[in-house]
Amino acid sequence: MFEFRVEGRSGRARAGLLTTPHGVVPTPIFMPVGTAAAVKAVTTRDLADVGAHIVLANTYHLMLRPGSRLVADLGGLHGFTGWKGPFLTDSGGYQVFSLAALRQLDEHGVRFRSHLDGSEHLLSPERSIEIQGELGADIVMAFDECPPYPAPREAVAAATTRTTRWAQRSREAHRRPDQALFGIVQGGVFDDLRARSAEELIRLDFPGYAVGGLSVGEPKPDMLRVLEGLDPILPADKPRYLMGVGTPEDLIEGIARGIDMFDCVMPTRNARNGMLFTSQGKLSIRNARHREDPRPPDPDCACFTCRTASRAYLRHLHLAGEMTAATLMTIHNLAFYLDTVRRVRHSILLGRFEEFRAEALTRLRPAPGEPPGQPELDPSS
Amino acid sequence: MFEFRVEGRSGRARAGLLTTPHGVVPTPIFMPVGTAAAVKAVTTRDLADVGAHIVLANTYHLMLRPGSRLVADLGGLHGFTGWKGPFLTDSGGYQVFSLAALRQLDEHGVRFRSHLDGSEHLLSPERSIEIQGELGADIVMAFDECPPYPAPREAVAAATTRTTRWAQRSREAHRRPDQALFGIVQGGVFDDLRARSAEELIRLDFPGYAVGGLSVGEPKPDMLRVLEGLDPILPADKPRYLMGVGTPEDLIEGIARGIDMFDCVMPTRNARNGMLFTSQGKLSIRNARHREDPRPPDPDCACFTCRTASRAYLRHLHLAGEMTAATLMTIHNLAFYLDTVRRVRHSILLGRFEEFRAEALTRLRPAPGEPPGQPELDPSS
Repeated sequence: MFEFRVEGRSGRARAGLLTTPHGVVPTPIFMPVGTAAAVKAVTTRDLADVGAHIVLANTYHLMLRPGSRLVADLGGLHGFTGWKGPFLTDSGGYQVFSLAALRQLDEHGVRFRSHLDGSEHLLSPERSIEIQGELGADIVMAFDECPPYPAPREAVAAATTRTTRWAQRSREAHRRPDQALFGIVQGGVFDDLRARSAEELIRLDFPGYAVGGLSVGEPKPDMLRVLEGLDPILPADKPRYLMGVGTPEDLIEGIARGIDMFDCVMPTRNARNGMLFTSQGKLSIRNARHREDPRPPDPDCACFTCRTASRAYLRHLHLAGEMTAATLMTIHNLAFYLDTVRRVRHSILLGRFEEFRAEALTRLRPAPGEPPGQPELDPSS
Repeated sequence: MFEFRVEGRSGRARAGLLTTPHGVVPTPIFMPVGTAAAVKAVTTRDLADVGAHIVLANTYHLMLRPGSRLVADLGGLHGFTGWKGPFLTDSGGYQVFSLAALRQLDEHGVRFRSHLDGSEHLLSPERSIEIQGELGADIVMAFDECPPYPAPREAVAAATTRTTRWAQRSREAHRRPDQALFGIVQGGVFDDLRARSAEELIRLDFPGYAVGGLSVGEPKPDMLRVLEGLDPILPADKPRYLMGVGTPEDLIEGIARGIDMFDCVMPTRNARNGMLFTSQGKLSIRNARHREDPRPPDPDCACFTCRTASRAYLRHLHLAGEMTAATLMTIHNLAFYLDTVRRVRHSILLGRFEEFRAEALTRLRPAPGEPPGQPELDPSS
């Protein structure tokens, strides 16, 4: 029911096949984020069309609204959303620490107030696994404690050992054989804590390992160093998932360090803010130079948006506040991410990943005149 | 290049085929409204999928943003939007009287200030036809003066005779043989003014006639009486277009009085506000009784939304503020409207329109517990 097979390697990069009850996922893979049981601004048909293989949904958001019991009654995430491919749910740990008002954090779990209505809720390893069981994703995550960045070493160390204990309790609470439970490596930017966390989790023998607590504000070299340290420790025959990462470049750099799975809101959120990822770098659709540009967002892309819409049209729709702008740009950005991992996978199978990486990273540098950062930080926005 | 053929009749209802440079439109037909060169919340692929045949775009909005010259440079509405089927543009007359700040209205035309940025613009018969030429729709409308409702008889009479003079000037300004120019009948709720307006326009010999100035607040019996009065006057071999109408019931009642074409923002706007049109009447998705309802919005509908989404899921997405809710509900409402006119057309060709009408109007009564009006007026919203 659940299997991972590495089909090819190029350097430390791996091309695999992840079999789940709802389909086979080629890896490396990017997972679009469907926080509230929908990837924002698109339909499940659009997801299939852009080549999505697996979708992430957020336990924290769904436990608060509409409630996991309701989702279960309607056939779990697959029945509720109409997305018939695999799902992955996170444990709620990250969001509870970043979005909710904490009331009490102790060895048992976390009491918190909803960011929606202030109502009080509990998350613990047992409760997270129970909720994820009701949501019914193919892959579920152990409940972890994700310390902020920066945090003192002792605080990170305590959160890391607690994460191990919570991983064990998550494993004991886990019942459904049709759900694969992944452990989450913590340890901040401390290499020895990361190594210890990974080793402790490996002793619990999970079918997959996530790397959490990165992309939370630490410098990029720290993230890459942590991944390099974990690569030889994590089992070579199990999938590795880098949580909440990142840009197309980050994906390529993660894959170069042995990562198989990624998720991030960046392609969808940036699309809604008018930022397109292209094979030539980022492009802010608000920019006046796109006003009369008949070209598609990315001449190298064959997605619905690039087949039918010009930059001028997208700019007009975005400035006019049309939801269709968000839909079309989300379709493109997701297609670009999924195209990127597909091309990476081919390069790995051909043993040419390093050539692909060098070429892609050169291309993805910001185009002249385009902002290097994310457009939501653009003062003109 | 442009032809209308009545293929069947059932009472006064007509089933026709309207040939345009971008495709053949079966009538009666409903035209989704793409105000700013996009039907809100959906893509052109969704439009094709719900069976849209012809899309309306608004001259007033497009002349202000992004400007008709820009649209022309990008291949007209067809090239700009990627919708390759027929388009119809209105003349801008209705919006300039309802949205803009009027500066000066005289025999030449209308000076007004944009509702977007206060900039000053002119619309006249010549300018409207020029702009519509740049937009490049298959069907364009004569520039008319649309009096408000209620208005004194003398004011309506003056606007009506001016509409005739402007129709003549529109006709003289019209150059493109690939665009069919329709005249617009005015005359408010005064039967004799309506008859005179129609007769004057018929002398100008347009390839189609629109009925404007209805659905502007007058009682429904007045609207139906005006249509009944016009039916024997308007040429039987030319298409008739009832502008800005209406509910599914209004469409059926209009068709019963010889109307062939309709447009209205209601299916798209109401979808964004959480109101679904169904074969059993209207349905407000916010209603708590849909919370756990696994049924599709309309069990008799085969649209993408009804094939894949439950009422419970749509309610969740709507309450969570997800754009996908607007998209899915817009898809359904447009599918319902287009399904309705398709079924009406079949019933006409079978000579069974009256049976269809009686059955449909019974069905479309509000379901018990659902609001009879539009949900945006719902105080709970």
